[in-house]
Amino acid sequence: MKNRIITISRQFGSGGRTVGKEVAAKLGIPCYDNELIEKVAEESGLAKEYVEEHGEYTTHGSWLANVLAAGRTYNGISNQDYLWITQRKIIMELAQKGPCVIVGRCADYILRDIADCIKVYVHADMDKRAERIVNLYGEREDSPMKRLKDKDKRRAAYYQFYTEMEWGNANNYDVALDSGTLGIEKCVEIIADIYKSKPIVE
Amino acid sequence: MKNRIITISRQFGSGGRTVGKEVAAKLGIPCYDNELIEKVAEESGLAKEYVEEHGEYTTHGSWLANVLAAGRTYNGISNQDYLWITQRKIIMELAQKGPCVIVGRCADYILRDIADCIKVYVHADMDKRAERIVNLYGEREDSPMKRLKDKDKRRAAYYQFYTEMEWGNANNYDVALDSGTLGIEKCVEIIADIYKSKPIVE
Repeated sequence: MKNRIITISRQFGSGGRTVGKEVAAKLGIPCYDNELIEKVAEESGLAKEYVEEHGEYTTHGSWLANVLAAGRTYNGISNQDYLWITQRKIIMELAQKGPCVIVGRCADYILRDIADCIKVYVHADMDKRAERIVNLYGEREDSPMKRLKDKDKRRAAYYQFYTEMEWGNANNYDVALDSGTLGIEKCVEIIADIYKSKPIVE
Repeated sequence: MKNRIITISRQFGSGGRTVGKEVAAKLGIPCYDNELIEKVAEESGLAKEYVEEHGEYTTHGSWLANVLAAGRTYNGISNQDYLWITQRKIIMELAQKGPCVIVGRCADYILRDIADCIKVYVHADMDKRAERIVNLYGEREDSPMKRLKDKDKRRAAYYQFYTEMEWGNANNYDVALDSGTLGIEKCVEIIADIYKSKPIVE
């Protein structure tokens, strides 16, 4: 039997990471987010900050930038591809260990055939997310709107580049939730309930 | 205070209409689907079958086809635009009467400013939907896959033409659910629970 894994894709600033942690705590299963980044950094030899940024975002927002980024190589492949391969391997290993929550990093796509995935997408409107990132990370030189737009664009480009699927398309998820209108707690409750009640996929 | 309205956008064959009816029954509020079509037909003078088909689907799948369709006019506007205007008016009137469920017909967009909407999107994968439409409507000359692809394309084109928004983009909904993996009953339960617990929008 495949392990039941909750994968959480989330817009930057939507609180999806918090949702993931709280769902895992509620269900008594591990949540891999920061720990995943540390494992990937350790195994790849790349800096944690590099993994954090480049394991989920393109350097720039375009496909062309990805192709150009392939110029910097590591054993004949680009750093970004090397990171993708290492990250993919670790996500697959974690999914074999037991039920868990994995935040971001295309885990929904990576685990599509080997786990009983509950694919979740968490989003919120710009105003709600802007408020959240200013509260969490403080003011920056760029406006919160500019930071959000940049992150959205680069995360979508990364996802599409490696999965050839459209990020944020509702048809790709079992459940997609607006944390801004529903609230973090309701999102946690819905996802935990689905985890407990969804028919098992062999 | 605005009325709380559940708008259900759904892929053809996903069971979204059934979800809508069952949510309404559970909450003791009306569900406007067939009744809405009848009201629009009565007020517009257009045939019920015409309203059913052209109040939600473009004639063909493209924007150009919509522009060309404007050739057939009624008092200087195309039949399709005349139907849109009538349908919009009736949806707004229904939303003023009291809480309800409205299935399809861009109600999420039409009511965005005048109701406290819970915007739902229901979808399922091709195999599940194909099975459902064959059970419900029987075999046709075209394969179920062809029928689904055609309906998806024309519904998306209609939505985009009148709302300038992307149909099926998770960011446009409070909640998007896969009725194929979660089951109709779980979808009903989640939506009814959100109806009862979502913070009120003034």
